[in-house]
Amino acid sequence: MVKTDILIIGAGPTGLFTVFEAGLLKLKCHLIDALPQPGGQCSELYPKKPIYDIPGFPEVLAGDLVDNLMEQIKSFEPGFTLGERAETIDKQEDGSFIVTTNKGTQHHAKVVAIAGGLGSFEPRKPPIPNIANFEDKGVAYMVKDPEVYRNKKVVIAGGGDSALDWSIFLADVASEVTLVHRRNEFRGALDSVDRVKELKDLGKINLITPAEISEVRGNDNGDLEAVLIRKNNEASEEILLEVDHFIPLFGLSPKLGPIANWGLEIEKNAIKVDNTLDYQTNIPGVYAIGDVNTYPGKLKLILCGFHEATLMCQSAFQRIFPDKKYVMKYTTVGGVTGFDGTKKEAPKAVVKAID
Amino acid sequence: MVKTDILIIGAGPTGLFTVFEAGLLKLKCHLIDALPQPGGQCSELYPKKPIYDIPGFPEVLAGDLVDNLMEQIKSFEPGFTLGERAETIDKQEDGSFIVTTNKGTQHHAKVVAIAGGLGSFEPRKPPIPNIANFEDKGVAYMVKDPEVYRNKKVVIAGGGDSALDWSIFLADVASEVTLVHRRNEFRGALDSVDRVKELKDLGKINLITPAEISEVRGNDNGDLEAVLIRKNNEASEEILLEVDHFIPLFGLSPKLGPIANWGLEIEKNAIKVDNTLDYQTNIPGVYAIGDVNTYPGKLKLILCGFHEATLMCQSAFQRIFPDKKYVMKYTTVGGVTGFDGTKKEAPKAVVKAID
Ligand SMILES: Cc1cc2nc3c(=O)[nH]c(=O)nc-3n(C[C@H](O)[C@H](O)[C@H](O)COP(=O)(O)OP(=O)(O)OC[C@H]3O[C@@H](n4cnc5c(N)ncnc54)[C@H](O)[C@@H]3O)c2cc1C
Ligand SMILES: Cc1cc2nc3c(=O)[nH]c(=O)nc-3n(C[C@H](O)[C@H](O)[C@H](O)COP(=O)(O)OP(=O)(O)OC[C@H]3O[C@@H](n4cnc5c(N)ncnc54)[C@H](O)[C@@H]3O)c2cc1C
Repeated sequence: MVKTDILIIGAGPTGLFTVFEAGLLKLKCHLIDALPQPGGQCSELYPKKPIYDIPGFPEVLAGDLVDNLMEQIKSFEPGFTLGERAETIDKQEDGSFIVTTNKGTQHHAKVVAIAGGLGSFEPRKPPIPNIANFEDKGVAYMVKDPEVYRNKKVVIAGGGDSALDWSIFLADVASEVTLVHRRNEFRGALDSVDRVKELKDLGKINLITPAEISEVRGNDNGDLEAVLIRKNNEASEEILLEVDHFIPLFGLSPKLGPIANWGLEIEKNAIKVDNTLDYQTNIPGVYAIGDVNTYPGKLKLILCGFHEATLMCQSAFQRIFPDKKYVMKYTTVGGVTGFDGTKKEAPKAVVKAID
Repeated sequence: MVKTDILIIGAGPTGLFTVFEAGLLKLKCHLIDALPQPGGQCSELYPKKPIYDIPGFPEVLAGDLVDNLMEQIKSFEPGFTLGERAETIDKQEDGSFIVTTNKGTQHHAKVVAIAGGLGSFEPRKPPIPNIANFEDKGVAYMVKDPEVYRNKKVVIAGGGDSALDWSIFLADVASEVTLVHRRNEFRGALDSVDRVKELKDLGKINLITPAEISEVRGNDNGDLEAVLIRKNNEASEEILLEVDHFIPLFGLSPKLGPIANWGLEIEKNAIKVDNTLDYQTNIPGVYAIGDVNTYPGKLKLILCGFHEATLMCQSAFQRIFPDKKYVMKYTTVGGVTGFDGTKKEAPKAVVKAID
């Protein structure tokens, strides 16, 4: 069982910054995310696109913002349960909570902060009969650990940035990469499209278009063994390709999902919170911050999540330590003391005679 | 008379970012600040110190944050009335406002956003009889335009960073710089103290310590002509120094000042606002954002001012254009179109065949 002070559901920008504000209050955090990497929408939907309205950044790539946040929270040593979806919440007698994921991982915390954005990112799955039987047995809808594919035969399906980028990346890792797309045209960053063409010309990516995977086949152990590729040409030519892994990358879309059944007040597909004070939900000890919450005048913007996280942490502190009085110190004045023993602080002024 | 959509009182980080959020809504802004430069506390009190809790910046110097904000708002062409204090507010029949400064400059706007921080920065003045007679006639408590001092004889008094830094800067501009401090010890950044010593040794700064200015004297036109310096030694030796300018730099401290008499609800030296919706004060059309406001759970942090500014601009938009419906677009998706004709936007994805 993972134990922490604040359990954060969702490792988007809001969840990540919560770790920092909690850390200043000496509270430890653990984050759960359905995605294999932190960053939420920024990492999954537009990592290479610029954002212009993060205060102090005339322009910042969404992926760089996430990297910066990871760097900013590093010394507070957050824990991560990635690639798992928070499924159930159980309130304990002492007022604390146990949150369990779809893979059965349990987390115990005094406070739960839901920073679930538009919801848990769930893959769009291709309509191939029996594909569900091969999930985690050769079929995966996101790349969690690229090393799994080292020296393996991999087929990727899709026509967007994820399919392009993972084909490029795995071309150097896997023994064989085949990219299948139902059109000849790909939609993505110009760089990525051009690079795939180069790798195709070098024979490092085997490109099959316009085509679709029509069948998946397994061996006696139930592991994936081959895919059947049907070309979208007049002959509807079929190719049976032996592969170790099949990665359909047709995009991930967020679904509020199991959280909708936790007894929280839901409005417009978001969780109602008390914005007059601390962004707490109708369940005391459970907060909702960032895109996932709603209140009068709510804006689904990154900078709003940062503010909400900050106020929420103050309230969480009072809940966890009802008897302690917290005196806020500016980071510039008090510095930042990490849980890893590091300390950042401003250089002190000197008092020095000139003679 | 300056005319604008949103008149912002206070050019600290909150006021500056308001220009950006207003700009996205096509609203023009003008800022008034008692200080000669934008940036509020960040510029005046700790420009060279790091801040650690601006989201996305593991560390940023307060002065750099201000520079970044100025860059971010540049294309929205904000107007500035600097070095003047907003003194009175008059509501017009049509619901708009006229705000007048201590120098008589008038500003007309439909919405007023008070982003006054801890208040208007006012200089601590030395207890020299008659000094008030020479204000703007040779005596100034802040450096507004360094060019005023070119080839002039200047005496600076003070022992902190401002006194050190302006002595260093003016050593290259003025014909003669004298630095007077009542102690031998200076308190400031090590660099600055060392540099003043160097310039003293080079004969470019005339250092007189421990000493104080005890008198200021004028010529027949009423302009400053000389200062009397009394050394704090046993002999209490006196030096009469002919000068064109005397700049006492004993620090600036913020005072809520005239705003306290505008009929706003004040609590704990701050302006009460409606945090449940839009940070409006008890006077409709007048908002208060950043350090200057108070509400349950308020934190005087820069990141909170950013959020408050953003929500406030939405409400201001509705007030200014009651009939328009605003549809929020992410900056990443819609780009940023400046009033200067520039447009920033994300590179578009390409749709391209690979053959
Ligand atoms: C194309 C695009 C452009 C944008 N441009 C801008 C912009 O310019 N400026 C701006 O401010 N905003 C912009 N946004 C919006 C911005 O990305 C969101 O406001 C921000 O990501 C919200 O952060 P968050 O941390 O609240 O949620 P998210 O980023 O959505 O992260 C939530 C995370 O929670 C996880 N999660 C949810 N439920 C569960 C569960 N039950 N179990 C496990 N994990 C779960 C999800 O998988 C997700 O990773 C843009 C969004 C898009 C799509
Ligand atoms: C040493 C120090 C360290 C700090 N460290 C941090 C930190 O690490 N993190 C953090 O988040 N915050 C920190 N702060 C606080 C931070 O600086 C403030 O929260 C921030 O500056 C508030 O911004 P603001 O724009 O609301 O107000 P301010 O920065 O105070 O700006 C207000 C401006 O309004 C002007 N003004 C007021 N009234 C009038 C008037 N009537 N007419 C004309 N002008 C007027 C003032 O002259 C001033 O320039 C620190 C503060 C100090 C002093």
